[in-house]
Amino acid sequence: MQYNPVELIIKKRDGYELSYDEIGFFITNYLSGNIPEYQMSALLMCFYFQGAMPKEISALTQSYIDSGKRIEFDAALPVADKHSTGGVGDKLSLMLAPIAAALGLYVPMISGRGLGHTGGTLDKLEAIPGFNTQFSMEDFKKLVLTHGYALVGQSSAMVPADKRIYALRDVTATVESAALITASIMSKKIAEGTKYLVIDLKIGSGAFMPNLKRARELAEHLKTTGESFGQKVAVVFSNMNSPLGEAVGNALETIEAIEYLKGNYLPDTYEITTALISEMLMMAGKAKDFSQAETMIQKVLEDGSALAKFGTIIAAQGGNTKVIEDYSLFPTAKFKLPLVAPTSGYIHDIDSRAIGYALVRIKAGRMKTSDTLDYAAGAMLKPKIGDYLEAGEYIGELYCNDNSKGSEVADLICKAYTIMPEKKEKEKLIFDILR
Amino acid sequence: MQYNPVELIIKKRDGYELSYDEIGFFITNYLSGNIPEYQMSALLMCFYFQGAMPKEISALTQSYIDSGKRIEFDAALPVADKHSTGGVGDKLSLMLAPIAAALGLYVPMISGRGLGHTGGTLDKLEAIPGFNTQFSMEDFKKLVLTHGYALVGQSSAMVPADKRIYALRDVTATVESAALITASIMSKKIAEGTKYLVIDLKIGSGAFMPNLKRARELAEHLKTTGESFGQKVAVVFSNMNSPLGEAVGNALETIEAIEYLKGNYLPDTYEITTALISEMLMMAGKAKDFSQAETMIQKVLEDGSALAKFGTIIAAQGGNTKVIEDYSLFPTAKFKLPLVAPTSGYIHDIDSRAIGYALVRIKAGRMKTSDTLDYAAGAMLKPKIGDYLEAGEYIGELYCNDNSKGSEVADLICKAYTIMPEKKEKEKLIFDILR
Repeated sequence: MQYNPVELIIKKRDGYELSYDEIGFFITNYLSGNIPEYQMSALLMCFYFQGAMPKEISALTQSYIDSGKRIEFDAALPVADKHSTGGVGDKLSLMLAPIAAALGLYVPMISGRGLGHTGGTLDKLEAIPGFNTQFSMEDFKKLVLTHGYALVGQSSAMVPADKRIYALRDVTATVESAALITASIMSKKIAEGTKYLVIDLKIGSGAFMPNLKRARELAEHLKTTGESFGQKVAVVFSNMNSPLGEAVGNALETIEAIEYLKGNYLPDTYEITTALISEMLMMAGKAKDFSQAETMIQKVLEDGSALAKFGTIIAAQGGNTKVIEDYSLFPTAKFKLPLVAPTSGYIHDIDSRAIGYALVRIKAGRMKTSDTLDYAAGAMLKPKIGDYLEAGEYIGELYCNDNSKGSEVADLICKAYTIMPEKKEKEKLIFDILR
Repeated sequence: MQYNPVELIIKKRDGYELSYDEIGFFITNYLSGNIPEYQMSALLMCFYFQGAMPKEISALTQSYIDSGKRIEFDAALPVADKHSTGGVGDKLSLMLAPIAAALGLYVPMISGRGLGHTGGTLDKLEAIPGFNTQFSMEDFKKLVLTHGYALVGQSSAMVPADKRIYALRDVTATVESAALITASIMSKKIAEGTKYLVIDLKIGSGAFMPNLKRARELAEHLKTTGESFGQKVAVVFSNMNSPLGEAVGNALETIEAIEYLKGNYLPDTYEITTALISEMLMMAGKAKDFSQAETMIQKVLEDGSALAKFGTIIAAQGGNTKVIEDYSLFPTAKFKLPLVAPTSGYIHDIDSRAIGYALVRIKAGRMKTSDTLDYAAGAMLKPKIGDYLEAGEYIGELYCNDNSKGSEVADLICKAYTIMPEKKEKEKLIFDILR
């Protein structure tokens, strides 16, 4: 079917629903070069302003998937995955995937790189010397079938539409559209063969979602879209006001994840990781409730099988497994600077986004995809919202190799903590779960 | 000053006002190729959805003007012009310009071509054998100074930004934005040197504006913008539900305009043309009120000086002046088909837009700028909304050279008339005037 691209933009602009065929026509012809970028960007902006109906999002998702190859697993296999909308200190994938694999789930985890204030799982993994995240879709599938999981980057053969359209969205101010975010996330999670998907939808100062209202809208889109493709989807709405765990920075976070798998976990990462895995187990029919799931998770942490799974995948993906016992094999920072509370009081607020951006200055993160990283750079940040600090007490430590920027970054991080004499309640870590 | 284009798009997208410098930066860098079309189209769509503040529209207008050359007339010269937002059968420029010139105004009239359901003054003029509408800005100015007016197309040296941005708006569904329409219209009217501008803002089935509310918004923008550049601006809100006059089609309309200048004018074209010229005369201080203006206009119609002015410009622009006395020198149609009322009753509605589009099929108009025209094609349509017709009575006649499409087009035109037995009031021609 032939359509007039301008008429389709007008239709969407004026708030009418585009049909499955119309959306397929637009995306296909954009990818083939028949529809120019300026028309695609106009349509994307209309999606930004007008939103989209579930059928439109399914159509977008389908056309993204159709642009590349997809992985299909045996129908009997419990293929489950997690997606996080991103946060500061979010290393949960590194613990979640080996635990889930140790519990018999198959986790085809495709992750991304950090950008702006948030980190990316691929960058954290690449802090492990030799660790390779680039595999063909065939080899990725083999890794998953052999080891129960794999931790890779997106193959260029998978949903190339998303890569091209995301790049355009990034430069046309159309990233923040629930409809487009949904198609972007779900197309990958469907093309990778996942049947049970849990989404860690982060809300707060260190996340992309500023409030629960906007998050719920996105969650409904994600769930409805996954279900229209036969997936089971659960969404965990989690608190991203305080950085997650203590480590922020690539090597530091990977070390924290290894400690976790050794049983030395922190309360906040434990609560959210366990909730996420529990949802995966329940959807896959492996646990009947949270209590049963938690017992199962505890077991694979205590008996070392989750840690063993991590060692297995490091080896299978070319990394140096000795890092598990010897953290000095990670890139290390020459300088450690103290982060000190300027006044006494309770932490009322943490601007996690500001912490993420401050750390970009010492290359713990990047502003552009072409920026290089310093894997050793980062910070260890202990206190959370509601904690009490004495003036002069350590908030944590800054790790850097570029000492010229150290004190400026340390200052920015300390300023991200709003400390006041009045008592402040600790915050809930999980706001809600949508099943 | 350097800005990040994405941040400017986000600012506009989120409803904030862009500064003069920010708009100038965006337009200038788009024209120089530093900002790609996909970012321009994203920004244009944000203007579509968010509208614009007066300062933003002035900034857009200024940056359009700055992209090319402008004409400056002696400060003492009463330079006045009219702009019409376009309609079906709208040949008013052809009468207005020579009358105004005969009354001592200087009219640097730059017109456009027809597109879609509406005609364009240049096409009507080019129905005159030899008539040339392309002049350099220098020669155009000379014509105006010598003859009191000229009827030309836009020079590529004048507001080239508008031409490029309009072409992009046309293919990205961002034409219908009051802010962008204003910058497009006003940049040309300021760059051509006009001091007193009357705008014929047409509302109804044959116009782009569907209702008075939207028209008032545009009118306020036009007036405020013109005034921010030192112009006097008046806006006449006129009725475009019935085609204007009787002729629709290029040669037919030019003949109707010549008849008008000979004193054989029709009531509707007379009322609107006189109102428009009257506003020009009042702004320029040549008439104190409508009554005085009408007397002046009557005089130059009666003494033949307006018609003489038309002959002068035809000669000056290379056309065959004999057409004034011998209409057979115009391209003529081989076939005339009757347009007949199917039932008896009062005309309640005329879908003038449908009439315009129907006539495109016999090349009286065009869908794309590259389409060729048949200057002879068109229709003579007598009755207006509120008129009574007997079944079988002539609505008018269709003129065409492509007889294969004649009966289909005739049928479409007849169907554009809603005829019902109940009495229907005649409609006002001028809804309001904004001074």
